[in-house]
Amino acid sequence: MERSPELSVGRIPIVDVEPSLEQGRWPARAVVGEAVPITATIFREGHDSEGATVVVTDPEGKRHTLPMPQQNWGLSLYEAIFLPTKEGMHSFRVEAWSDPVGTWIHAAEVKIHAGVDVHLMLDEGVDVLTRARDTVRRGAAARESLTEAIAALKNGALAPEKRLAEALSDQVRHTLAKAPLREWVTASAEYPLLIQREKALVSAWYEIFPRSEGAKLNKKTGEWTSGTFATAAKRLPAIADMGFDVVYLTPIHPIGSTHRKGRNNSLEAAPGDPGSPYAIGSEEGGHDATHPDLGTMRSFKNFVKRARELHLEVALDIALNASPNHPWLKEHPEWFTTRLDGTIAYAENPPKKYQDIYPFNFENDPEGAYRAWRNIFQLWIDAGVTLFRIDNPHTKPLTFWERLLADIADAHPDVIFLAEAFTRPAMMHTLAKIGFHQSYTYFTWRQTPEEMGEYLKELAGESSFYMRPNFWPTTHDILTPDMQRGGAPYWKMRAALAATGSPSYGIYAGYEFVESVPRPGVEEQIDNEKYEYKPRDWSKADEFGIVSLLRTLNELRSDHVSLRRLRGLTVHRTTNPNVLCFTRHVPANESPKGREDTVIVVASFDPHSVNDAIVTLDMSSIGKQDDDPIPVVDAVTGAKYTWGREFFVRLDPSQTLVHVATVRL
Amino acid sequence: MERSPELSVGRIPIVDVEPSLEQGRWPARAVVGEAVPITATIFREGHDSEGATVVVTDPEGKRHTLPMPQQNWGLSLYEAIFLPTKEGMHSFRVEAWSDPVGTWIHAAEVKIHAGVDVHLMLDEGVDVLTRARDTVRRGAAARESLTEAIAALKNGALAPEKRLAEALSDQVRHTLAKAPLREWVTASAEYPLLIQREKALVSAWYEIFPRSEGAKLNKKTGEWTSGTFATAAKRLPAIADMGFDVVYLTPIHPIGSTHRKGRNNSLEAAPGDPGSPYAIGSEEGGHDATHPDLGTMRSFKNFVKRARELHLEVALDIALNASPNHPWLKEHPEWFTTRLDGTIAYAENPPKKYQDIYPFNFENDPEGAYRAWRNIFQLWIDAGVTLFRIDNPHTKPLTFWERLLADIADAHPDVIFLAEAFTRPAMMHTLAKIGFHQSYTYFTWRQTPEEMGEYLKELAGESSFYMRPNFWPTTHDILTPDMQRGGAPYWKMRAALAATGSPSYGIYAGYEFVESVPRPGVEEQIDNEKYEYKPRDWSKADEFGIVSLLRTLNELRSDHVSLRRLRGLTVHRTTNPNVLCFTRHVPANESPKGREDTVIVVASFDPHSVNDAIVTLDMSSIGKQDDDPIPVVDAVTGAKYTWGREFFVRLDPSQTLVHVATVRL
Repeated sequence: MERSPELSVGRIPIVDVEPSLEQGRWPARAVVGEAVPITATIFREGHDSEGATVVVTDPEGKRHTLPMPQQNWGLSLYEAIFLPTKEGMHSFRVEAWSDPVGTWIHAAEVKIHAGVDVHLMLDEGVDVLTRARDTVRRGAAARESLTEAIAALKNGALAPEKRLAEALSDQVRHTLAKAPLREWVTASAEYPLLIQREKALVSAWYEIFPRSEGAKLNKKTGEWTSGTFATAAKRLPAIADMGFDVVYLTPIHPIGSTHRKGRNNSLEAAPGDPGSPYAIGSEEGGHDATHPDLGTMRSFKNFVKRARELHLEVALDIALNASPNHPWLKEHPEWFTTRLDGTIAYAENPPKKYQDIYPFNFENDPEGAYRAWRNIFQLWIDAGVTLFRIDNPHTKPLTFWERLLADIADAHPDVIFLAEAFTRPAMMHTLAKIGFHQSYTYFTWRQTPEEMGEYLKELAGESSFYMRPNFWPTTHDILTPDMQRGGAPYWKMRAALAATGSPSYGIYAGYEFVESVPRPGVEEQIDNEKYEYKPRDWSKADEFGIVSLLRTLNELRSDHVSLRRLRGLTVHRTTNPNVLCFTRHVPANESPKGREDTVIVVASFDPHSVNDAIVTLDMSSIGKQDDDPIPVVDAVTGAKYTWGREFFVRLDPSQTLVHVATVRL
Repeated sequence: MERSPELSVGRIPIVDVEPSLEQGRWPARAVVGEAVPITATIFREGHDSEGATVVVTDPEGKRHTLPMPQQNWGLSLYEAIFLPTKEGMHSFRVEAWSDPVGTWIHAAEVKIHAGVDVHLMLDEGVDVLTRARDTVRRGAAARESLTEAIAALKNGALAPEKRLAEALSDQVRHTLAKAPLREWVTASAEYPLLIQREKALVSAWYEIFPRSEGAKLNKKTGEWTSGTFATAAKRLPAIADMGFDVVYLTPIHPIGSTHRKGRNNSLEAAPGDPGSPYAIGSEEGGHDATHPDLGTMRSFKNFVKRARELHLEVALDIALNASPNHPWLKEHPEWFTTRLDGTIAYAENPPKKYQDIYPFNFENDPEGAYRAWRNIFQLWIDAGVTLFRIDNPHTKPLTFWERLLADIADAHPDVIFLAEAFTRPAMMHTLAKIGFHQSYTYFTWRQTPEEMGEYLKELAGESSFYMRPNFWPTTHDILTPDMQRGGAPYWKMRAALAATGSPSYGIYAGYEFVESVPRPGVEEQIDNEKYEYKPRDWSKADEFGIVSLLRTLNELRSDHVSLRRLRGLTVHRTTNPNVLCFTRHVPANESPKGREDTVIVVASFDPHSVNDAIVTLDMSSIGKQDDDPIPVVDAVTGAKYTWGREFFVRLDPSQTLVHVATVRL
């Protein structure tokens, strides 16, 4: 922060520069191709004109200048759009300046028209345009254009109004706007802005338990054979074919045997129960090893290679805790907490005890513990993992994450971290600020159109400059009551909401089959895959049409830039409280391809009845006039409609609970 | 800002510290006795307990520690109340820390009750209380209390639950809360907080044109004799008697004769017209001189002295512009703008010209111009002026004001500046941020209960840490349409709103007479005092009861701390859109006298009919339970009522349009 402490206001004041996280305590974030609106409140004394410019410094130290026009006079609001094209740490500052040409044009137009001070105004015009020509670097054509304007002002053969009009031709105005004469240039502080690859914002995840893919039950012996990296790899073409771009594996490490959990989270495992992959570590190794049933590290790398061939990246689930059999318990007891009675502390939520899990201690040997974890992550990065899903990051010190994420970003800026922190907002927001690229959200628990609309608006707002949501309609841990009861039409609607409500979303394997039976008393599936093998008959995967829907949604996401952005969302009024309508819109100047894009989503949250609604669109939010027709194609049903500011929808669960309508240009 | 750039989150994260103006770009402000809520979002990993403390550093560098309890678990919000007792630049930081005692108490209470890990919990208690006793500085009694607690935990003769209960006596808990065992203490940045004298926030202004007070018309010759400082001083006892504490004089300098304005702003002054006191400067001097008709500098000082005897401070109106006859036009043409035709630029709003006023130029000779103005202000400070009302500060560079106000605050921290900037919000807010103590506001233009309620809430909100409103129901320049038509009951209501809606307010002389006739076509009085003498017959001043009302209001303001604060305002629901209800409340812990204070204002904005309303109070906002009775005395009528959460009011213009009800304790 470079500021003069004595005269902090500046000659042309600039306040409230955004995006800024506590004035640069952390960088704001965006991805390549994602338009960043840079705004500031700028004003000046008296009646003279001011102007503003944004100067962006890219990672190579090269400066780029962006025009920053006034957006709102009453609020003194100026805005520039920065469309990043390269990754890395950028910074920007806002410059405000006195605009003597603008001041003169305003006065000259009024006064010459009114016949007041006519010759003085013409003379002042010659003076100010001469300065604009001679003191600002510009090309020969631009100089020539200003020379002609000056000559026009001096041309005694013309009437004064004509002289002014000639001098202020469109070409001259363009020349002046492009390279303005700037006086008393005042700079804001310099604000950091980190640009990451597009996948940090935009991704479609598909979650599998690799041991389930290809697992086989011997019906005679009742014994299971685990799926392997090799058998799981056979599932990859189908995942890629649905259009997902990330395959996410639950933990793949050896699983402890002491206090192993049995089916349905029972305290006693039966013989042959594979245990929870989150109880990490056995004699066969810890976080640096693969489970022997899944295969070797070489076989894991083959899995990654196969995924890559199919344009899938591999996300690995890392849970920073240990089973009682984790090798580190013996090798590094200092990385755990020893209690007064000499025992090692297991996880607990008093009076409940979780004796199958030992939390790490990051304080006894901070440097040693840090190095150990840094090495674990490096090992998997070296094996080809490019995304990590971090289990419960909010139970570890944030200083640890901030250091780890900065370290890894330095060496591997392409590696992406997803935080699974279902907790209070302050923690979730701060994990994002300190470096997590993506966050699980409250999406599943927003169960009415009103709640969902509010939440979508919140996520598309101020926090969009650092927190990127990843929407999951279910996970292996979460099956909300509405999903238990809604049936296939409702599951389809929630999948469509997830895929269009957020640039990143995820689907947990088995969604295709509407696996909606809960274990009594808890909001998760019965026969939870965490504790057993769960092979599925993929030949019947599309019986509910969900495979087709997911393929359609992923195609839409890839064709429509508005679905790949977080900002540009508007929630619209509907006459039915069961019906939500929101739009995603990217105007042409915020699109890398220079083409505007709009998608309209209308969803009924009621799976049991037909719901009618009249929707009233805020037309300006999608770049339309109030009387414009809106021709759309519904990607879900293929139907074409011509909508307008007001339109009627009927959402019938026997047909569809959701329209995802793309606007035809 | 002291922060480690590498690990900016800190071991126990602290974010969103308030009050902060752009993270310390400018200091937040408060006055002696005004409670400052210091808030932060604080949380930590996992389930262990955290605590927080505020450390305030006073102007002598002495540190004061304030407890900062959690206010809202879901929002991770912590708050401390700082009640300043001395003026000067303070700073504060927030400290967050791990709370091992809190963590242990929570676990021990649950687990010992459940019979889990009983002896381990007792042993851990001995350990943590011993650390709390031996590593935190505390007195002998506190140490002894902890030693007894430790002994209780070890007392094998008692049942475990009894041992715990004895160890955690109220006295022990108090000892621990007062001086907690703090681990992993994490500090926020240091935030500046400027404490000023109470008058910077709380003041009651009374505006006069001194030349009118004692002015005499010779009916034979038609000639006027101007009032003088000496005759104006005769008005001071009445002003003081009404309870005002600031007497504000419009400019007192020599007035130009060239292009002098005549009555009702006519372009031609008639012989004997005194001219506008805002057209400053003549052969008799400029801003450093007194108008000869008013008297000498010595006579001005006598006026100040007389005011002081009556506990009135003197505010002087400074307009930084010149009449064509100002001595500086000749002596320092570089302090004005010379145009291309060699003329000096007068004020204009093209195509309108104001040839009686020349704006100053602060750019040609910034240092010279600055010194000249600094000297002018010093001259009047030396003459006893302690407040300045600055005319149109928004037409001068903000860098000028920031430097001037800092300079004067250094030498004369008691001097107060009121900004008359009726302009866009960004400018008004920034003038406040850079040092103006008080601001004129949009109060006069908020003409419905809804608008007024919103505005009061806005002013009592975030901006209350730097912008202090001064409410004027009229000024010599402003007579809004509602005031033209409302009559005495309405004028009384607006005076009561001004006096209770803001800690600072002002009344322009003549308000007592309901001088409500406008000059046709403009929103100001006919026969505007700016252009003529306007003596009033003060013997009839209370014919509308306004003198008595003002006296009552000023007494209330002096008796009720809640009326002297900006925060603590709540707007309540009423059933009638013509009726506004708001309360002012200071809880005991935010009051210098340790006594809570509540005032309820109910006003009808309809001067022409009787309005009934049912008011529903947000009881928690005034520290009450929903079923508490609220005994009140209405200061306007003297009536006593017992109100409650819901109460009925009838506001009849023939009686009163406003209740100002104080709550009896």
